[in-house]
Amino acid sequence: MCTLKRLAEKGIITEEMKACAEAEGVEAEYIREGIAKGHIVICKNKKNKVTKPCAIGKGLRTKVNVNIGTSKDRLSVEEELKKLEIAIKYGTDTVMDLSTGGELDEIRKLIRENCPVPLGTVPIYQAAIEAVEKHHKSIVEMTVSEIFKVIEKQAEDGIDFMTVHCGVTKQSLERLKNKERILGIVSRGGSFIAEWMIYNNKENPLYEYFDELLEIAYNYDITLSLGDGIRPGCIADATDGGQIQELIILGELTLRAWDKGVQVMIEGPGHVPLDQIEANVKLEKKLCHGAPFYVLGPLPTDIAPGYDHLVGAIGGAIAGAAGADFLCYLTPAEHLRLPTIEDVKEGLIASKIAAHIADLVKGIKGAWEWDLEMAKARARLDWEAQIELSIDPEKARRYRIEGGISQSKACTMCGPYCAIKIFESAYKFLKGKDFSLNDSKS
Amino acid sequence: MCTLKRLAEKGIITEEMKACAEAEGVEAEYIREGIAKGHIVICKNKKNKVTKPCAIGKGLRTKVNVNIGTSKDRLSVEEELKKLEIAIKYGTDTVMDLSTGGELDEIRKLIRENCPVPLGTVPIYQAAIEAVEKHHKSIVEMTVSEIFKVIEKQAEDGIDFMTVHCGVTKQSLERLKNKERILGIVSRGGSFIAEWMIYNNKENPLYEYFDELLEIAYNYDITLSLGDGIRPGCIADATDGGQIQELIILGELTLRAWDKGVQVMIEGPGHVPLDQIEANVKLEKKLCHGAPFYVLGPLPTDIAPGYDHLVGAIGGAIAGAAGADFLCYLTPAEHLRLPTIEDVKEGLIASKIAAHIADLVKGIKGAWEWDLEMAKARARLDWEAQIELSIDPEKARRYRIEGGISQSKACTMCGPYCAIKIFESAYKFLKGKDFSLNDSKS
Repeated sequence: MCTLKRLAEKGIITEEMKACAEAEGVEAEYIREGIAKGHIVICKNKKNKVTKPCAIGKGLRTKVNVNIGTSKDRLSVEEELKKLEIAIKYGTDTVMDLSTGGELDEIRKLIRENCPVPLGTVPIYQAAIEAVEKHHKSIVEMTVSEIFKVIEKQAEDGIDFMTVHCGVTKQSLERLKNKERILGIVSRGGSFIAEWMIYNNKENPLYEYFDELLEIAYNYDITLSLGDGIRPGCIADATDGGQIQELIILGELTLRAWDKGVQVMIEGPGHVPLDQIEANVKLEKKLCHGAPFYVLGPLPTDIAPGYDHLVGAIGGAIAGAAGADFLCYLTPAEHLRLPTIEDVKEGLIASKIAAHIADLVKGIKGAWEWDLEMAKARARLDWEAQIELSIDPEKARRYRIEGGISQSKACTMCGPYCAIKIFESAYKFLKGKDFSLNDSKS
Repeated sequence: MCTLKRLAEKGIITEEMKACAEAEGVEAEYIREGIAKGHIVICKNKKNKVTKPCAIGKGLRTKVNVNIGTSKDRLSVEEELKKLEIAIKYGTDTVMDLSTGGELDEIRKLIRENCPVPLGTVPIYQAAIEAVEKHHKSIVEMTVSEIFKVIEKQAEDGIDFMTVHCGVTKQSLERLKNKERILGIVSRGGSFIAEWMIYNNKENPLYEYFDELLEIAYNYDITLSLGDGIRPGCIADATDGGQIQELIILGELTLRAWDKGVQVMIEGPGHVPLDQIEANVKLEKKLCHGAPFYVLGPLPTDIAPGYDHLVGAIGGAIAGAAGADFLCYLTPAEHLRLPTIEDVKEGLIASKIAAHIADLVKGIKGAWEWDLEMAKARARLDWEAQIELSIDPEKARRYRIEGGISQSKACTMCGPYCAIKIFESAYKFLKGKDFSLNDSKS
């Protein structure tokens, strides 16, 4: 019984490392070393055979995650499975099941069965909801043992990574007292933990019993995604004492996890003005010793509900370019409702675009080549190649067909007055021409 | 007969300056000084009464432009007028008529009549198209006098700002010979000029006769938008010798225009990797002496046709935050077809979001306040206020209603498990609680 991290530390390259290396076009040794150092994670529960393993971290392609899951007010397992199908079809790297309505165990098992990519959860959701709906008490009355039983159960079900809000500690909450935030806590998991702590006047069990958590994570080789329960819920609350206090604690917990052979990611904001995004990434990389950074957006404005996929893509591209490794998608429905299937697709494509823009900056293998192929297809006016090279060929094709000139070499933007065509023929003459540099008037 | 620039230089504050100052919430003296220095422009042909004047430049709200216009393959004046209506409804700051199909004079006059915001054109389009379709010759056979007649005609029609590709000079074209670009020239106007120059072995008339151009601009008080005919058409071509050579020349022309009392903006790319965007803005500001920067996107990836509004919003937000003053929208149809009415709306909203994100960074008056109001509405779970504060209240409302809980205080994302509600009640206890900082285990 051993984790990927321990194996990597011993210099052993596993099948998972090889598969991830091949997918990335890097040496397996690079992946091994990254895992040993903690700068790369492979999310894979040892109970579970992930069909498409995925490595997240330094020097690798920026990954994207799709959240799905029921809520009490919108409860259709079929719909969630369809969202899963769409998410896989359009190339998500991972999925999180955030269900909070219905038979959570059954829903999770169904999603697990149908999910070929790493699957994550937030176990505190189920613990809190079972307290209310199964044990008929309040969230603050759930016991520490109930919380850990849920974690163990989900581990046993083959969950590959888990968000655990271990950094919502008394010290972090103290920081929220100092200066009133506009939106105190907007992380659902964070709010469950904070409520529990405040009413019980006790430390966060996920912090107090972190060693026990590490034991479960070790036994199943689960990657812990250290959640940001104190993340800002609006631009005005960004990068404040509470948020950074939590990040400091997560950095300390990272070292404790590594010491026990457990893989760790760090979750990040959230709502952040554009000019604070890079600083947030750099802070995480330093305070958390290079552990992969998993950001939610970030959203550089609050005022665009209905367009948060686009706002999140702006923040995500900048965060990724600055070094964030993993982008959690946002859909146009964020802040308004649970996403529909179409919302899931829109959100995922937006995130993938952001990740790719970041990869161009990071110099990830294949990123520049993709853009170059597109540019060459444009230069050739090769419409079929342009469509095939598009991030969403279906939409590109539909747009072009609706434009009405699907067969010709033109498009309705320029018609016969196409810059590329005009300059193409003129260029041959230009190359043979001697424009004297001094002869500016002729 | 005098231009706003000359009046500003003399210390005179005009009605237009006052109106713009009021719209921005700044002192009229600030606008006057900016115009005198050339760091701010007010696009307003003196023949034309702009109902909604708009100042563009340093310290002011980042503005957005919507392009409309027919093409030979898609020729419906009614549709273009509907696009104009949508653009005005959703708050564009300016419009450009880029028509290349049909009766260009008539179309332009109709758009002018119905356009309450500053209207721009690219006169070389009409000159080239008339050469082919009216005078039955090739573009390279158009005469200098024909070009200037079109410019004069459009000036007479009340066009407020004109894109003139004066920087496509022999020196700039020389740079394109040195290293083969993937996509030589993708600016339509730039390709017309380059073709003309190459086949005629002559200097660009808009450069050679720049003084004559300035005379027309002065007479009508038209703002010259010095076009980037050599802008990169793909990521691989970005920030190369040709592009920067043109920018150097535009900087020189800026001083000549200012010297003659003519207002100037500088047009910028185009396709630029994310980590070169800020450098492009800084270069423009330095080389062009602080003249307002009007960017097209920029697009930090080439691979997302169908989503170029989103890609452009990523580039635009970063450019704006770095100091770009004016964002030309891109629609999802870019690179694929002429935009539909729905595309215009999507493109405009994306640009407006980018501009606002930039304004938060720039510290523009009212920007932070808007986000703060939204955050407060969220904290109150005041759904009506959240929708009203949205950049697109119609879409936000539709999403929420489709979510199914339009009346309650909840949304389908969290249902009863709402972080804001949970923490709100817990917070009251938190404030009264003495969490001892040293007592990390209790």
